[in-house]
Amino acid sequence: MKHTISVLVENKFGVLARISGLFSARGYNIDSLAVGETEDPSVSRMTIVVNAADERILEQIKKQLNKLIDVISVLDLTKKKHYDRELIMAKINFSKTLEPKISKITKRLPVKIIHRNKDSYVIEAVLDQEQAKDLMASLEEIGIKELARTGRIALEP
Amino acid sequence: MKHTISVLVENKFGVLARISGLFSARGYNIDSLAVGETEDPSVSRMTIVVNAADERILEQIKKQLNKLIDVISVLDLTKKKHYDRELIMAKINFSKTLEPKISKITKRLPVKIIHRNKDSYVIEAVLDQEQAKDLMASLEEIGIKELARTGRIALEP
Repeated sequence: MKHTISVLVENKFGVLARISGLFSARGYNIDSLAVGETEDPSVSRMTIVVNAADERILEQIKKQLNKLIDVISVLDLTKKKHYDRELIMAKINFSKTLEPKISKITKRLPVKIIHRNKDSYVIEAVLDQEQAKDLMASLEEIGIKELARTGRIALEP
Repeated sequence: MKHTISVLVENKFGVLARISGLFSARGYNIDSLAVGETEDPSVSRMTIVVNAADERILEQIKKQLNKLIDVISVLDLTKKKHYDRELIMAKINFSKTLEPKISKITKRLPVKIIHRNKDSYVIEAVLDQEQAKDLMASLEEIGIKELARTGRIALEP
């Protein structure tokens, strides 16, 4: 099961290395990670998505996170009501033949074309998990040249 | 000067810890970091934003990144033409008095209200750097209850 964990940390160097080390030491790979500033410049928020095969190990990791001095709070949003979003940017193939396929996608999903080359488009989209899966599957049919995803962030309502 | 560095890495555990360790060992704090999957599930893209006081040290870090076996490519987009975007989610104060201020923001910037409580709104916005600064300054006037930012991602056109 994929868990979305929101961690508030002191914005100091070394914190990121310690936290990612904590996951990797337990053999847990992080699916996605987004670290950004908060309204307080001394505090950053990390949103970590992990696929937890063993819930007990994840509980241990969360406990250890809470013990790190630079960690302010650890919140597992997985079972709470929350809004999650991810930003996806992609450079995709473009041709006259692909045009109908692309416009089908932009009609179905909130996808914005931000740059047009002769043979490629650059698009951006903010999506929840289900929409992100949908977009990725559709883009694969068209052909992705380059892809950048932010990883998920989430807030409680 | 803030640098935007795009790193393609093998999606293996420990890679994130090694890369963040490389920055922190040199006393470099990462401003933001976004790690997401790419079209190839075995490869992730990390977009790192660092404030490089000393360009020579940053050059060294980039060289060392290139030497790590799990690093596929390192691209410093700072001086190249690129599109950068960040996703910001915020829970902000809401009241009748604040309403005109909020609608002023949503008119000026591409901000979407995704949830309305009695005394707070949850918003999402995809912005470039300048717009992000603008939004943050405006939101501070209104009052931020909670904030989640993905950190910047970027693609060449």
